[in-house]
Amino acid sequence: MVNTDSVSVRVFSLNCWGIHYLSKHCSERYAMIGDALSKEEHDIVLLQEVWSEKDYHSLKKKLACTHPHSHYFKSGVIGSGMAIFSKHRIHDTFLYRYSLNGYPYMAHHGDWFGGKAVGMAVLNIGSLVANVYVTHLHAEYCREKDSYLPHRVVQAWELQQFVRHTSAGADVVILGGDLNMHPQDLGNRLLRSYTGLRDAYLETDVFDGCENGITLIAENPFINKRELVPFEQGIRIDYILFKGSSKTKIYCDSMSTTKGSVPDHPFPYSDHEALTAVLRLEPHTPNETGRGMQSKDQDSAAEKKLAELVDIVTEARTEVKVGLHCAERMRYTVARSGLMGLALLVLELAIAAVPWLALGEEQPFPRVSFYLLAALCFAILLTAILLYIFYTMELKSLQGAEDQMRLAVGGLQEKLRGFPL
Amino acid sequence: MVNTDSVSVRVFSLNCWGIHYLSKHCSERYAMIGDALSKEEHDIVLLQEVWSEKDYHSLKKKLACTHPHSHYFKSGVIGSGMAIFSKHRIHDTFLYRYSLNGYPYMAHHGDWFGGKAVGMAVLNIGSLVANVYVTHLHAEYCREKDSYLPHRVVQAWELQQFVRHTSAGADVVILGGDLNMHPQDLGNRLLRSYTGLRDAYLETDVFDGCENGITLIAENPFINKRELVPFEQGIRIDYILFKGSSKTKIYCDSMSTTKGSVPDHPFPYSDHEALTAVLRLEPHTPNETGRGMQSKDQDSAAEKKLAELVDIVTEARTEVKVGLHCAERMRYTVARSGLMGLALLVLELAIAAVPWLALGEEQPFPRVSFYLLAALCFAILLTAILLYIFYTMELKSLQGAEDQMRLAVGGLQEKLRGFPL
Repeated sequence: MVNTDSVSVRVFSLNCWGIHYLSKHCSERYAMIGDALSKEEHDIVLLQEVWSEKDYHSLKKKLACTHPHSHYFKSGVIGSGMAIFSKHRIHDTFLYRYSLNGYPYMAHHGDWFGGKAVGMAVLNIGSLVANVYVTHLHAEYCREKDSYLPHRVVQAWELQQFVRHTSAGADVVILGGDLNMHPQDLGNRLLRSYTGLRDAYLETDVFDGCENGITLIAENPFINKRELVPFEQGIRIDYILFKGSSKTKIYCDSMSTTKGSVPDHPFPYSDHEALTAVLRLEPHTPNETGRGMQSKDQDSAAEKKLAELVDIVTEARTEVKVGLHCAERMRYTVARSGLMGLALLVLELAIAAVPWLALGEEQPFPRVSFYLLAALCFAILLTAILLYIFYTMELKSLQGAEDQMRLAVGGLQEKLRGFPL
Repeated sequence: MVNTDSVSVRVFSLNCWGIHYLSKHCSERYAMIGDALSKEEHDIVLLQEVWSEKDYHSLKKKLACTHPHSHYFKSGVIGSGMAIFSKHRIHDTFLYRYSLNGYPYMAHHGDWFGGKAVGMAVLNIGSLVANVYVTHLHAEYCREKDSYLPHRVVQAWELQQFVRHTSAGADVVILGGDLNMHPQDLGNRLLRSYTGLRDAYLETDVFDGCENGITLIAENPFINKRELVPFEQGIRIDYILFKGSSKTKIYCDSMSTTKGSVPDHPFPYSDHEALTAVLRLEPHTPNETGRGMQSKDQDSAAEKKLAELVDIVTEARTEVKVGLHCAERMRYTVARSGLMGLALLVLELAIAAVPWLALGEEQPFPRVSFYLLAALCFAILLTAILLYIFYTMELKSLQGAEDQMRLAVGGLQEKLRGFPL
C-alpha cells in the first residue's frame, strides 16, 4: 500500500549544556528550552548533555501534551545523558556506549565521567518506520595537538557501525547531535560516506542561521572567544543528518539555527546553537524492472564513492594506529613508574627491617619521613596499577577497532574489484 | 534472481575454557581443537573463552587453508575473547559489550575482568547475507541464590536487542555460544521469543549427543560433579540458534555434541561439550499476493505469541527491579561505611591535632596504632568511594534496561490491542 502523500517532519537538536552548578543559568535555560519546545511543537526533539535525569523529568512533564512519547538515555557515571521527545510513538529503544571516551585523570575535561553514547529510538511516522539516533562525541580541546583524536575517530567508527547495522529495516534514518567534529573532519567524512547519511545544512536551499551554519559561535555569551581561535566566527560541530531507503525518499526543505541569542530573553538556550530541520518524506516505489540496468555513469559514480570510502577508512586506520602507539608508550611509562615505586618501597622496607630484625631500638631515619615516603611509594604503585589496567583496556579497544577497519577495507576492496559491474 | 538449490551450512560452537595457568591442559586442548577443526572443515566455527589472543593467532595459522576468514572479538581487560572462523568471506564485524557483568570484587569468579560481549560477523554464503553472532553470558554459580540473575537478564535483554536491531538486513541469522542459561530460564525465553530465534537442539530430528542435549556434563573429567547438583547428569547451557527471513527458509538437518571425551585423546576439548549443527538454507519467494490474507488460526497464534512475549518482558522487568533494589541497598550500605570511615578519620585527626595544637610533645596514643588506624580509615573511605561509583553505574544500567523494558511492553501491548487484525 503506497501512500503518495508526502509527510513533513520537523526535527530539533540541541546540546543543552545542562551541568548544574557548573553551567551558567542552568535552570533558567531549561525553563526557556521547555517553553520553546512546547510552543514550537517539533515532531522530534533530540537533546544532548541533559546531565541530570531530574531535568529530563521536568521537561517530560512540561511537554506531556505536545510530545507524549519520550526516552532518556543514560550514558556515564554522572551524565551526560541524552533525551528524545517525540509526537510519534516510540516503540523501541537501544543504547550503545562508545568503548573509548578520554581519560579519567583528565577530570577537568570531564568527558570520561560523562560517558558518551548513541541512543536509538524506533518511531512510527504514519506507516513509515523511522530510526532516530541521538549522540554526543568526545570534545576537542586543542585542534593543533588533539590527544583525543584517536578516541573520537573510534567513536565515529562505532557510530557508523551502529547506524549502518541497526537501520536496515528502517524507511527513514535521522541522526542529530553534537559530533564535536568540523564538517570535513575525518570522523565526519567516515560517518557520512559509510552510512550514506546526508547533512541537512548542505542539502537545504533555505537556511536561516549563522554564516557557514556554525553552531558554536563567538557571539554566544557563554562562549570563551579565545577557545575558538583560529576560527574567530565559530565552528560547525552540531548536525542533523538523514537518509531515506528504497521505499522512502527524504529531502530537507529548510533549516535554521539560533544565532547566539533568544528574543525577549537575557541569554541563549545553551553554549551551542539549536538546530531545526524540516524534512519531507515521500513514499516511493522502487523501479524493480530498472534494477541491474544502471547506467555507466551511475556505475562509475558508485565506484568512485567506494574508492573514496576505502581511502577514508584507511586514513581512520592510520589515526587509530597513532593512538595505539601513544597508548603503548603511555602503558610502558606507567609500568616503569610502577616498578620504580615498588623498588623504592621494597628498599625502604629493607632499610627499616634490618635494624628491626637486629632488634635495634633506633630507626635509621625519622619515623614521619619513613611513613610519608612509604605512603608516597604505595600511592605511586596503586596509581600505576590502575593506569596500567586502563591503558590495557584502551589498547584493546583501539586494536579491536583497527582489526575491524582492516577487515572492512579488505571487504570494500574486494567489492571495488568487482567494478565495472 | 532466486536460487532454488538449498545450501548446507555446518556450524560449530565451543566454550574453549582457554585460561592459561588456570584451566587444565590448556595448550594441549587448543592443539586438539585446532586439529579437529582443520579436519572437520565446518563452514562456521564459533569459539568462546579464547582468553589469549595468541591462541587465536595460532589457531588462525593452523586453519589458514580450511578457514581463510576469521575475526577475534576482544571483550574485557584480560579476556574472555571470542573468535569466529569461516570458510565464507567475513565482510563486516561489530562488537557490543554488555553494560553489566558481575562485580570486580568477586575476583574469584572472574567474570567482571573477563568482560562479556556479543560479536557479530556479516558473511556471504553464496548469494545470501548471513549475520553470525557469537556470545558468552555471565556464569551462574549458585542456582538457589543467584545474585547475578539481574545482570544475566540484562545481558539477555541487550543480546536480543542487538540481534533484533542488527539483523533486519540479513537473509539468515545464526547465533552460537555459551548462554549460561538453562533452556527454560527467563533470559533464554526472552531471547528466543523476542528475536524469533529457534533452538537447533529442539528443531532437529537427528541428534547425537548426551541425554537432553546437555553440554556441561558430569562425565567430563574437568567438571566438579558437586557443582552440578541438583542436576546430576548435567545441564544444557550452550546453544546454536538460528532463524531465516522472508527470503530464506532455514532448517536444522542434524545436530551433535561431544560426550565428555574425544577418541584417541586422554581428555576432552574443554569443560563444555562442543556443538555441531547442520543447517539447510532454502531460498524462498514470499507469496506477495497471500499477504494480508492470513487465516484466523495464524492470527490467533500470532496474538498468543505476542501475549506470551508481554508476559516474559514483564517477568524480566520484575527481575531487573529486584536487582535495582539490591543495588540500591548495597550503595546505601557502602555510603554508610564510607561516612563511618570518614568520621573515624576526622575523629582521630582531631585527637591527634589537639595536643599538637597545644604544642604538647606526647601523643595521646601510640604512633604505630595511630598510623595503622588512619591507614585503615583511609582504605575504607577509598574502597567506599570506588564501590559507590560502581554501584551508581550498576544502578544506571539496571534502570536503563528497566526503562527500555517498560517502553517495549507499552509498544507490545499497543500492538496486542490491534488483534484480531
